Amino acid sequence: MTRSNDIEPCYLTAAEAAARIRDKQLTSEALVRSCLDRIAERDADVRAWTHVDPAHAIAQARELDKRAPAGPLHGLPFGVKDVIDTADMPTTQNSPQYQHHQPAKDAGCVAVARQAGALILGKTDTVEFAAGGRKALTRNPHNPAHTPGGSSSGSGAAVADFMVPLAFGTQTGGSHIRPAAFNGIYGLKPTWGAVSREGAKLLSASCDTIGWYGRSVADLHLVAQAFRLRDLAAQQPVAIKGLRVAMCKTPYWNKAQPAGQKSLATACERLQQAGARVDEFELPPTFRGLSDAQRTIMYGEGGAAFLPELLKYGNGLHHDFQDMAENRRGVTGAMMVEAYDLAASCAKAFDAMFADFDVVVTPSATGEAPEGLHTTGDFIFNGMWTLLHMPCLAIPCMKGPQGLPVGVQIIGPRYADARLLSIGDAVAPVIDAITPERAAHRG
Amino acid sequence: MTRSNDIEPCYLTAAEAAARIRDKQLTSEALVRSCLDRIAERDADVRAWTHVDPAHAIAQARELDKRAPAGPLHGLPFGVKDVIDTADMPTTQNSPQYQHHQPAKDAGCVAVARQAGALILGKTDTVEFAAGGRKALTRNPHNPAHTPGGSSSGSGAAVADFMVPLAFGTQTGGSHIRPAAFNGIYGLKPTWGAVSREGAKLLSASCDTIGWYGRSVADLHLVAQAFRLRDLAAQQPVAIKGLRVAMCKTPYWNKAQPAGQKSLATACERLQQAGARVDEFELPPTFRGLSDAQRTIMYGEGGAAFLPELLKYGNGLHHDFQDMAENRRGVTGAMMVEAYDLAASCAKAFDAMFADFDVVVTPSATGEAPEGLHTTGDFIFNGMWTLLHMPCLAIPCMKGPQGLPVGVQIIGPRYADARLLSIGDAVAPVIDAITPERAAHRG
Repeated sequence: MTRSNDIEPCYLTAAEAAARIRDKQLTSEALVRSCLDRIAERDADVRAWTHVDPAHAIAQARELDKRAPAGPLHGLPFGVKDVIDTADMPTTQNSPQYQHHQPAKDAGCVAVARQAGALILGKTDTVEFAAGGRKALTRNPHNPAHTPGGSSSGSGAAVADFMVPLAFGTQTGGSHIRPAAFNGIYGLKPTWGAVSREGAKLLSASCDTIGWYGRSVADLHLVAQAFRLRDLAAQQPVAIKGLRVAMCKTPYWNKAQPAGQKSLATACERLQQAGARVDEFELPPTFRGLSDAQRTIMYGEGGAAFLPELLKYGNGLHHDFQDMAENRRGVTGAMMVEAYDLAASCAKAFDAMFADFDVVVTPSATGEAPEGLHTTGDFIFNGMWTLLHMPCLAIPCMKGPQGLPVGVQIIGPRYADARLLSIGDAVAPVIDAITPERAAHRG
Repeated sequence: MTRSNDIEPCYLTAAEAAARIRDKQLTSEALVRSCLDRIAERDADVRAWTHVDPAHAIAQARELDKRAPAGPLHGLPFGVKDVIDTADMPTTQNSPQYQHHQPAKDAGCVAVARQAGALILGKTDTVEFAAGGRKALTRNPHNPAHTPGGSSSGSGAAVADFMVPLAFGTQTGGSHIRPAAFNGIYGLKPTWGAVSREGAKLLSASCDTIGWYGRSVADLHLVAQAFRLRDLAAQQPVAIKGLRVAMCKTPYWNKAQPAGQKSLATACERLQQAGARVDEFELPPTFRGLSDAQRTIMYGEGGAAFLPELLKYGNGLHHDFQDMAENRRGVTGAMMVEAYDLAASCAKAFDAMFADFDVVVTPSATGEAPEGLHTTGDFIFNGMWTLLHMPCLAIPCMKGPQGLPVGVQIIGPRYADARLLSIGDAVAPVIDAITPERAAHRG
């Protein structure tokens, strides 16, 4: 078994591990065994995983080690949120009704990851159906008394805790970017429509988006290559000097805790010191309605999504989903149409703002992860961007007063995912004081 | 075995059969056996079905006959387009790669139909993945030398040919409404987002919609009840006298054949004679771009949808899907954004027009079904409405010069599906000269 000399493989970022595997400095098997060791050591506390089959994972890694690398993810282990179908592992949705559910086919995103050379290490815990109901059992690896966020709780915690270098999450409100923030890792929610959602549990057809986590922008880039996101090959390195940065407090600034507010200010100060042109940027007043519009659409479309479950399971179904399917919030067709039209007009207006700016920087969550597992935190700083279909990239920034990570997200116009990743490459080393500190202690 | 006295059960509409089953004039078993007899007699010519299991269907019917009716579809057999997952039957997608694929779970729409009391009679042939590639083997039951339309070819033909009273189809361009037109039956494509698409093959997240076929508006209404479409209970009967009808030729009128043009004129004349106020109504010039916008979005989003298949099957995959996944049409992000924004602004403008009109009447296809099975016809009169997310109801109207049915569709604003069905109840008996003629020969 080849081992990297300087560091336990589980601590490598995906990009580092991929390079070493390519250069035959590391085998997939060694990487997988290191991740499995880390899981064995840590998961009784973190509880990120709903399913791991070590023998199956090692067998896959050994097979990959016999093949010439064929894709950008060759030999890398991947965690998969347990609302995403896997043909070789159960998909429980963290629902009592799906505990023994075994899909016949991989979800689209899982198939792409496998074909790009990844191996699926296991399934990660999630808020039930990524939509409500039961919370994940997962704890924040920085402090087990705190939530890792949700609904992609297990994926966020597993990547943060060095159990796996990459994982899939999903976002309908703030389920992908918020756990990235709370766990101090990187996450990309691509433009809506750019990645197949087939085989992921449906909540809102207008909002549901597959995303991925890593521990560097380069990690996110590897997965973006696997998904062939538009214009990746055409990107040039971005210079931070002169980069036009819009600091956006959003209409919900008063919901940000001091740590969340400070994180945005700190990120922007660091960017300015590095030569970027940072201007505060106020969204037009119509944007204020976007958070409510996102909820209207999520609950309205969720009604259609959970009607089959309601009819099958009746009162056995968690009341959150009964409420949606019975439309107990009273979402009318007129409310839906108004919400769709507001979203569309704001999306167009937001894209147009990029004539004056290269990138928007805005909070990724209200602040540090709340204490307790009864909540996964507020998605007020995420829902609007999900509804607008914009690509969002979470970047860790600093520690808050409780010693937990606080981050920001950078946002680009629709379908500018590749450019956003390039901007991320430039700004992340300036913004992120969390990752270097953690790296100093790894291994 | 109970039989209806006056007519072979397979010739009953779903609404007629449901009423007789409720009144114990008919058993589900008798209905199913009659449908199976019809399939045995006709399907060697029509080739609507990819999978029928008579013993399984009869067993289900017998079980339903033992239970008190619990839902609006109690005892009714349903055909399911073979891109929609069924837990007890293969789902082949009419793709060489999926010939032995057995899903683990029913699609959302199938689960709703079953819970509403329906039994799934079998799977119906489809254009490959409802998206391109191989055509269905299905022939038009009115003339086997002609296409039944597509991609919901088998569902449309099976309902038209009295093999099953109800069936699911899907529409991304014109795949649901056009087969309704070519087969001379009724079809509802509900508002996008109103019905769960989970478990149906994904092509375009923005456009894909599940719809259903029947042989009367009342049939469509029964299924709408099962899906609890908004505001159904609040509907009042609609008077045709004074009904404000917008005759809409669309920007693509020159693509309509003489029979298609005559059908719209005939439908509107009949409505006017029955007391409706019919005005010709011209869409604003921006609407002219909608057909191209729909194609841009379908091919662009289709790229993401078929990337997993491309990576898995390579050159084994039909070149139509390779083209999409490889983006050989060169759809850029800017083109996608422009198309989304055009669709959103037109949807808002279209909804606003209903201040002046109750309903829009417009062609459901270019004319009669083309000869040959190499084409399923043009979807120029459907794509724009799919993209706009409007509910569309296909109504048969008259026979064309080749003796094949020609229809119209009526369209309402988003989420006004219930009102559209009520308007359909009022206008269908006036517009439709096909169904009464066929009814006279049934049994």
